[in-house]
Amino acid sequence: MTLTKDTQYRSLNPDSLRQVLADLPPLASRLGGAAADWSIREVSDGNLNNVWLVHGPAGSLCAKQSLPHVRVDPSWKMPLDRTTFEAGWLEAVTPVVPDMVPAFLHFDPQLFLLVTACLDDHVTFTEALAKGADPAPVASQIGVFVARSTFHTSWRGGPFENMARLEQFFSGNTTLSRITVDLVLTDPYHDHPRNHYHAELQPLVTRLHADPAIHRSVCHMQSRFFTAREALLHGDLHSGSVMVGQDKTSVIDGEFSGIGPIGFDCGMFVGNLILASFAAPSGSRRDQLHQAASIFHESFIETYCNEWLHSEAKTDLAPTFLSSHDPDEIQRQQKEECDRITADTAGFAAMEIVRRLTGYANTSLFNGLPEPQKGKQQYQALSFAMELLSDLKTAPEKLFPGRIIPL
Amino acid sequence: MTLTKDTQYRSLNPDSLRQVLADLPPLASRLGGAAADWSIREVSDGNLNNVWLVHGPAGSLCAKQSLPHVRVDPSWKMPLDRTTFEAGWLEAVTPVVPDMVPAFLHFDPQLFLLVTACLDDHVTFTEALAKGADPAPVASQIGVFVARSTFHTSWRGGPFENMARLEQFFSGNTTLSRITVDLVLTDPYHDHPRNHYHAELQPLVTRLHADPAIHRSVCHMQSRFFTAREALLHGDLHSGSVMVGQDKTSVIDGEFSGIGPIGFDCGMFVGNLILASFAAPSGSRRDQLHQAASIFHESFIETYCNEWLHSEAKTDLAPTFLSSHDPDEIQRQQKEECDRITADTAGFAAMEIVRRLTGYANTSLFNGLPEPQKGKQQYQALSFAMELLSDLKTAPEKLFPGRIIPL
Repeated sequence: MTLTKDTQYRSLNPDSLRQVLADLPPLASRLGGAAADWSIREVSDGNLNNVWLVHGPAGSLCAKQSLPHVRVDPSWKMPLDRTTFEAGWLEAVTPVVPDMVPAFLHFDPQLFLLVTACLDDHVTFTEALAKGADPAPVASQIGVFVARSTFHTSWRGGPFENMARLEQFFSGNTTLSRITVDLVLTDPYHDHPRNHYHAELQPLVTRLHADPAIHRSVCHMQSRFFTAREALLHGDLHSGSVMVGQDKTSVIDGEFSGIGPIGFDCGMFVGNLILASFAAPSGSRRDQLHQAASIFHESFIETYCNEWLHSEAKTDLAPTFLSSHDPDEIQRQQKEECDRITADTAGFAAMEIVRRLTGYANTSLFNGLPEPQKGKQQYQALSFAMELLSDLKTAPEKLFPGRIIPL
Repeated sequence: MTLTKDTQYRSLNPDSLRQVLADLPPLASRLGGAAADWSIREVSDGNLNNVWLVHGPAGSLCAKQSLPHVRVDPSWKMPLDRTTFEAGWLEAVTPVVPDMVPAFLHFDPQLFLLVTACLDDHVTFTEALAKGADPAPVASQIGVFVARSTFHTSWRGGPFENMARLEQFFSGNTTLSRITVDLVLTDPYHDHPRNHYHAELQPLVTRLHADPAIHRSVCHMQSRFFTAREALLHGDLHSGSVMVGQDKTSVIDGEFSGIGPIGFDCGMFVGNLILASFAAPSGSRRDQLHQAASIFHESFIETYCNEWLHSEAKTDLAPTFLSSHDPDEIQRQQKEECDRITADTAGFAAMEIVRRLTGYANTSLFNGLPEPQKGKQQYQALSFAMELLSDLKTAPEKLFPGRIIPL
């Protein structure tokens, strides 16, 4: 679905959004009162969408509309279909993680307008980390989230036709996949005008652009990203896509969703925890944040294996009659699959760290540090990521030291 | 695209086909003369389509139309879209193997009618084998065919968006993929009413339905089939899909096409050569046919690596700047990729042998043998396939003994 001449698309503003919502009885009654009484607050973040939080006497909602161009550069045109994929992702994962995504309320395919429940009183996990929040509970919950959302959208979640339908839909999401391919998988490994980084990193970046062992690992991870048709991924699971409330953690912004290796979602999240760890102002905070990466990973593995053990889905991959001879057989298959996901997690985590320090969309996690610590700690983070990429075989042990995998 | 109420689909007969062709000027002029002069010969084979060869004074063509039901059972309804996928496959591979597929002439999406050049004076490779033809030249040519058709429709053939478009289209081919999943990957490994086999095979079949090591290998190969998003496959590359002419080998019947592991196409073809080998009436013929499997494989590997070396496609997977440091680096990557394809080839070849001896669509290759040889030789063939599946690690060496891989 792309912008065509006869589309009814128009960029909304608070007034026109109010009218659109007033014309949708379920949404109007959710908000309550008269349309004129609703407060509409724009909270747009990022370059690609407008986002409004709408409050009425009875309730609230969040409205997100694709922009037809990059906000800061109206000449950089963008197809509008990203909210279509975000809506599709929400629809696909809601049944298996209903309490960890905002409730879907409405999607208008002409306006590319997605309306969900409003996550009042939530902050992004990035903000929570900057304020020194304990990362462990969120890390553990996101482990559950990734395990459930990927397991049930994988070949283990049902007959192959389910997966084929997801594949058919999400393979259309090439606009945002192109951004991932360029910014995460490619640009940071050579000179590119979009790249920028702290001057302190120059010697490492020079090596990053030339080291054959690292480039070999990057080719391997690219191959995994492209060829591993494992499950529906969120596709952009950094700490800004995780909303933290009082008793609730929610995942938003599934517009980068697509079918790929499960370790990609794991690696994005782990990479951001490791970045936060290297950005920590103290050694104890650093340990706590690195430890949270292992907590995420263990929570993921435990949940993934539990979903598998208790799944009653009729599958074409490894149907019961092929794998129920032997109580150890399922465990053997689980270990093989989890080892592969863990290996991918380590590789993609390293690439996420690299691109957030040397690519286009740099991390803000180090912003609070004074110099020269800022440069030094970024140097340590990048060194660590490059060490992982120098030898993918040993990367999982380096990333999750002393991990106890419940297998 | 499926059958809907307002479709203009109707099952054609020679008279109505003549009218359809007469209304298409390029086809009418290809045939030449008056429509009444054209000879139309039905050569339908298999259960799913009608096929006619049409000859006129100036030229000829082949017309293939999907049937809305299984020929032998009109109550077994089938969606019509399989010729849509065959036409899509032909369109995708023709640019890279123009001399190894029949020329595409016309596709009517309402009638699900595909018209191609007529392969006059060709016989199926199955028939050629039964007549004792030397299998080596065809095996070598099909090696070239699989290498080119998969390499250029893989992530190495162009930017990732090309592959995403193929994925979006071919993931819709679930009707015929369901047949592959059931008949090739699943049914032969347990009791199923569709299965049938020579009485001599009973002890082996009993083991096949219960052996944990074999079932583990089957689960692994299922996982490869589902998760390995490597290239566009023909999907049904048995000897009946290969047409052999005087100086030309062509591949037809791409209706099972889809995105999957390259070793699946290799394995189907190799499996059929090995079956032919075990069906041979003499030891020397057996050796010649088994040797042809290695000839196919070496031709495939050599061509695949050559296409890779000489490709100038701009790719997202392993772009030049990541893999051109070192003359050995490409060779190292090629070895890794070819080893993976070879491992898949061995596993899928074994499963093809198993299903052609114990599943629904049994091979005709043993039909010329008298008893008790027929039963004995099928027993040997099935034993060999089960030996491969008992240990996938050693399967490539057993399948291609003493192979010299040009790497």
